[in-house]
Amino acid sequence: MDFESILQPTINQVNARLDQLLPPTTETPSVLHEAMRYSCLAPGKRLRPALTLICTQATGGDPKQALDAACAVEMIHCFSLIHDDLPGIDNDDLRRGMPTCHKKFGEAVAILAGDALFALAFEVLGNQQAETTVVVETMKILTRAVGTYGLVGGETIDVLSEGKPVDADTLELIHRRKTASLIAAACEIGSLLGSKQDARPKLKEYGECMGLAFQIADDFLNETGTPEQLGKAAGSDRDRQKATYPAIYGIDESRKKAFDLAEKAIQNIQGLVNQSILEGLAKYSVERLY
Amino acid sequence: MDFESILQPTINQVNARLDQLLPPTTETPSVLHEAMRYSCLAPGKRLRPALTLICTQATGGDPKQALDAACAVEMIHCFSLIHDDLPGIDNDDLRRGMPTCHKKFGEAVAILAGDALFALAFEVLGNQQAETTVVVETMKILTRAVGTYGLVGGETIDVLSEGKPVDADTLELIHRRKTASLIAAACEIGSLLGSKQDARPKLKEYGECMGLAFQIADDFLNETGTPEQLGKAAGSDRDRQKATYPAIYGIDESRKKAFDLAEKAIQNIQGLVNQSILEGLAKYSVERLY
Repeated sequence: MDFESILQPTINQVNARLDQLLPPTTETPSVLHEAMRYSCLAPGKRLRPALTLICTQATGGDPKQALDAACAVEMIHCFSLIHDDLPGIDNDDLRRGMPTCHKKFGEAVAILAGDALFALAFEVLGNQQAETTVVVETMKILTRAVGTYGLVGGETIDVLSEGKPVDADTLELIHRRKTASLIAAACEIGSLLGSKQDARPKLKEYGECMGLAFQIADDFLNETGTPEQLGKAAGSDRDRQKATYPAIYGIDESRKKAFDLAEKAIQNIQGLVNQSILEGLAKYSVERLY
Repeated sequence: MDFESILQPTINQVNARLDQLLPPTTETPSVLHEAMRYSCLAPGKRLRPALTLICTQATGGDPKQALDAACAVEMIHCFSLIHDDLPGIDNDDLRRGMPTCHKKFGEAVAILAGDALFALAFEVLGNQQAETTVVVETMKILTRAVGTYGLVGGETIDVLSEGKPVDADTLELIHRRKTASLIAAACEIGSLLGSKQDARPKLKEYGECMGLAFQIADDFLNETGTPEQLGKAAGSDRDRQKATYPAIYGIDESRKKAFDLAEKAIQNIQGLVNQSILEGLAKYSVERLY
C-alpha cells in the first residue's frame, strides 16, 4: 500500500491550514515568523496531525472540524524539535535534511520561535469553533502530553541519561513520554472531536502503542539508516551515547518489540470507520521512518 | 504606605499554592522539578499574581477562585525569565540575587524547565473550577499575552535590536509586548474571574499603563540602581547596548513618562473596590523595582 499517496491530500490540507495560522512575515518581528514558518512548514509526513484527522473520522466526526486542533498538535511537535536540536540540548545541525532552526536563524531566535509556536498552538486550540467543554478538554489533553509527565519530561530524562547506563524500564519511560505521549494525544484529541466517544480510550491506547513502536523504529533507523533516509547524520544516538532499543535489546529483539506493539495498536481499532488506514499507519510506522 | 506588608499575605498565599501546583522533586525527572521550583519559588514580589487576585476582588469576585489563574500567570513569568537569561539570549548569571536557572542546573535543564512551566501554566488554567467559557477565555488571554504579539515577540525584537539604533516607537513596542502584555493579562484574567465585567477593559488598560511604567522604572533602575537593589549586576542593559528609556529620553524625561503612565493607570480604576490598593501599586511600580 502506498501510504504517502494515501496521506498526501491530508498533508496538503494540514500544510495549507498551517500556512494560514502561522503569523505572516510581513508582520513584526518578521524573523521570528520566518523561523516559525521555516520549521513548521518544512517537508514532513505530518503523522501527528494526520492521526488527529483520521481519528476524528474514525469516530464519526467531520475531519474539517479537527483541522485546527491537528495543526496545534503539529506546532507542538515542531516546538519540541526546535528546542531539542538546540546547542544546549542535542546540538543537531540538520533536521529533515535542512539546517536546524538555530543554525539558520541563530540560537536566540530558535529558542523564541519554539516558545512562540507553543503559545500559538494553545491560541489555535482556544479559538476552535466547538463547545467550550470540548475546547477545554483538547487543551488539557495537550498540556498533559507536553509537560513534565509527557514530552518535556521525557526529553529531560533522555538528556540526563546520556553516557550513563540505562535500564529497559527507564528507556521505555523516556520513549513513552518523549514520543508516545504526543502521538497518543493526537489520537485522543481527534477522537474527542468525533462523535463515538466510547472509542476514545481505545484510540488513545492505539496512539500509545503506535508511538512507542514508531520510536523503536526511529532508534533502529538511527543505527542502520543512511543520512538520506534520516535527513541527518546516521549513528548520532550512538555517538551521543544515547539509550536506544537496539543498544539494550539488539537489532532482532528490537524489531520484534516494534512489530508486537504495532500489532497491539491494531487490536484497538477493530470495527472503526477508517480501520484499514489506521492499521496501515501502525504497520507503516514500524516499516520505515516517517 | 508600606506595600510589602500589605502585599505579604497575598504573596504567601501565592507561594503556598505554587508549592502545591509545582511537581514534587520525589517524582521523575526530579532535577527538572527542582529547577522549576527553584525558579518559580525564588523570592519575588509576585506583582503579576497579586494583580490577578486584586483585580478579581476589585470586580466583586472572590480572590480564592482566582488563585490558580494567578499562579499560572506567575509560572509564565518564570518561564520567560528562565529563557531570557539563557546563554543564547541575555546570558545572565544572576536573577533575584541567585544564580540563574542554567547556571544552577545547566542549559538543557533550564530550557526544559521553562518549557515545562509553560505547559503547567496552561494545565493549571485548564483545571480551574469555573465555567468552561470562562476557562477558555483565561487561556486565550494568556496565549495572546505570551506569543509573538506579546512577551515572546517583544523579547525577540529586544534581542534583535541590541547594538542597533532603536527609535522611540520600537522601544515602546518592545516594552509593551515584553512587559506590559503579561501584566495587562494578569489584570484582565483577574477581572474576568470577578463579576463586574464592565470594569474588564479598564483594568486591562490599567495593567497596560502600569506595565509600561513598570518597565521604564526597570530601565531606569538598571542604569542607576545598585547590584543589591537589582539582584544582578547594574548597567547590564548599557553593556549589552540595549535600547532603554533613559538612553533615548534621558533620566528626567523617562521619569516623567513613567509617572504620567502611572497616573493614566490610576484614571482607569476610579470607583472600584480595592481602588486604593490598585492606586498604590501603580505608584509603587514607578517608585521602586518589584
